[in-house]
Amino acid sequence: MSDHSPLALAQALIRCPSVTPEEGGALSFLADVLARAGFSVERPVFSEPGTPDIENLYARIGTKGPVLVFAGHTDVVPPGEMDSWTHGPFSGEVAEGFLYGRGAVDMKGGIACMLAAALAFLDARGSDFGGSIAFLITGDEEGPAVNGTVKLLEWAKGRGERFDHCLLGEPTNPDTLGEMIKIGRRGSLTGRLTVQGRQGHVAYPHRAENPIPGLLRLASALIAEPLDGGTAHFDASNLEFTTIDVGNPATNVIPASAKAVFNVRFNDDWTADTLGAEIRRRLEAAAGNTVRFSLDLQPSNSPAFLTQPDTFVDRVADAIQAETGRRPALSTTGGTSDARFIKDACPVIEFGLVGRTMHETDERVAVVDLERLTAIYGRVLEGYFSS
Amino acid sequence: MSDHSPLALAQALIRCPSVTPEEGGALSFLADVLARAGFSVERPVFSEPGTPDIENLYARIGTKGPVLVFAGHTDVVPPGEMDSWTHGPFSGEVAEGFLYGRGAVDMKGGIACMLAAALAFLDARGSDFGGSIAFLITGDEEGPAVNGTVKLLEWAKGRGERFDHCLLGEPTNPDTLGEMIKIGRRGSLTGRLTVQGRQGHVAYPHRAENPIPGLLRLASALIAEPLDGGTAHFDASNLEFTTIDVGNPATNVIPASAKAVFNVRFNDDWTADTLGAEIRRRLEAAAGNTVRFSLDLQPSNSPAFLTQPDTFVDRVADAIQAETGRRPALSTTGGTSDARFIKDACPVIEFGLVGRTMHETDERVAVVDLERLTAIYGRVLEGYFSS
Ligand SMILES: [Zn+2]
Ligand SMILES: [Zn+2]
Repeated sequence: MSDHSPLALAQALIRCPSVTPEEGGALSFLADVLARAGFSVERPVFSEPGTPDIENLYARIGTKGPVLVFAGHTDVVPPGEMDSWTHGPFSGEVAEGFLYGRGAVDMKGGIACMLAAALAFLDARGSDFGGSIAFLITGDEEGPAVNGTVKLLEWAKGRGERFDHCLLGEPTNPDTLGEMIKIGRRGSLTGRLTVQGRQGHVAYPHRAENPIPGLLRLASALIAEPLDGGTAHFDASNLEFTTIDVGNPATNVIPASAKAVFNVRFNDDWTADTLGAEIRRRLEAAAGNTVRFSLDLQPSNSPAFLTQPDTFVDRVADAIQAETGRRPALSTTGGTSDARFIKDACPVIEFGLVGRTMHETDERVAVVDLERLTAIYGRVLEGYFSS
Repeated sequence: MSDHSPLALAQALIRCPSVTPEEGGALSFLADVLARAGFSVERPVFSEPGTPDIENLYARIGTKGPVLVFAGHTDVVPPGEMDSWTHGPFSGEVAEGFLYGRGAVDMKGGIACMLAAALAFLDARGSDFGGSIAFLITGDEEGPAVNGTVKLLEWAKGRGERFDHCLLGEPTNPDTLGEMIKIGRRGSLTGRLTVQGRQGHVAYPHRAENPIPGLLRLASALIAEPLDGGTAHFDASNLEFTTIDVGNPATNVIPASAKAVFNVRFNDDWTADTLGAEIRRRLEAAAGNTVRFSLDLQPSNSPAFLTQPDTFVDRVADAIQAETGRRPALSTTGGTSDARFIKDACPVIEFGLVGRTMHETDERVAVVDLERLTAIYGRVLEGYFSS
């Protein structure tokens, strides 16, 4: 019988070089282990012009509800400079209590813990445990995210699959296992601001109209006051200018126009529409009749969302506290994840490993954290299917 | 006997295609006419690695002082779209009272008037008129200005030439002949401002340090208050931002640094040093302890200078008033000219044609203006050598 410890499973996954969009053997390994455990396994491949074909995996055991879904991704970001790793990024070596490798925390380690917990649960309870467990695994989370979770959810819906709750295993803890559950994410809105002027020579400024002072005024007005003070489960919304570009190489020429780009991460006080209106109001107030500007707003496909704290959230938090002694914060901070898609199918929360080394050289996970996270997922399964 | 009218001389010059750095026959034409009138003529060629060799002309008649110098350039800017000219840019055609062509006002027309005035003066007074007249003509005013007036002045100094006053024939009148003499020019100072931050992800702004708000604050502080209120003969100094460039293509990334460039045209309240110190003081006050910036100041080779109004300025103004009925403004506005070099050799003032069409398609001069400017220069010569 093969080794179903989370360490062995994580090592096997790390040794598959599944840099987006390559499957690298990782999904095949999962499919094999899940099938042997009694899961029915599907391997849909999704395509879209202009993006690489992507392999995905859907597995389920059980035919009735409730359905608890473990979600995640086996693809990883590139390892960067191979030589600067202490242990090879695809070696799965363990040293001084840490498992090294690309994906150790983001999130082959998390998937290994889910898998180990599910296998142990099924070993103990058998297949008639009073519900269903599903695995929803994509190979396109770190890439364009076009042929991954979005299509996998559509595909599952088309087959009549219905989910009750989802646990996404992204690394949610900043420093220590147990610190943080993510129960929602802020929305994202990108704006492109252009101020129009009239080109001319610096020696004759009255014949030209420099757009830069207008841009300084409008940009300063946008960041002069906070957008809000935060909400019950969200930090204050935040606007960052990401670039300003005029591109005028001539030091004796007043340029014709000036452009700035900003991005807002916004909370559930706003929709993309109400936020866009507030931004436009601030710009118009600052511009008055003297600054001519245009604004192009591009809401991303990630509106702010919140999984209302309820018994499922409590159940996960209880399991974390039982294993780690910590009551996790219910957070909505950080960047986007596939939770933004899953939330439309069922309530989703995120809890996984410690993310500190994710996407970095020497990405690694404490072996003890793999064991603890497996125990936490195991407690969630026990509680979820106890009634 | 050849036609020494200013129109004929200007036509002959315009027909020489002397686009910088090409001599195009223009200096040879001048040399020929001047030599026939009794001038000793020199044609020094100057070189510098990385720039084209440039032909220049120095001519003098008379051996004693005072020495009045007529200065100018025969090189012209390119004609642009040949087809959009009503009359060919090198055709020298006259239509409805206007002479068309590249250089008509900047400044082959002005040189033609100087030459016509000098020839008429010598015809009337003979060569023993009680002083010397010199022509200091370069072919490198519209180009890098490296192998032109600067070296020609050095060369003349090396030969023991000494000048008492100089009249530079650049087009100084905005709209009507007689409006404006230039008796000085503002200085120019270029500054490059860089604000340092720390790169990061927009979703984690507390881990990054966005340099753009700091740049907005510093740039706004630089233009918040005027530098001065102008001086007796100068407008207020003026600072224009010419570009801001961050060059960050990623809308989810906070950039590491942000750069801005500005140019100041400054009056005789300042030197490049005192102005640089004031700019640094403003930036430091705005930066406080929170914004990390660096400033690179590049004074150009054009400090502010003023030819003190005196009897020579009065003489030229009187001549203008006698011919046009207008008392010219004594101005220091506009861009730089070779006066910035000549001022070190002797007092220099600028007066020429109407500049409205300079550097444009259909550059042209009213034939009557050529005649009037010749008469003005003639009056200056009469007055200068009367005592
Ligand atoms: Zn991830
Ligand atoms: Zn000129």
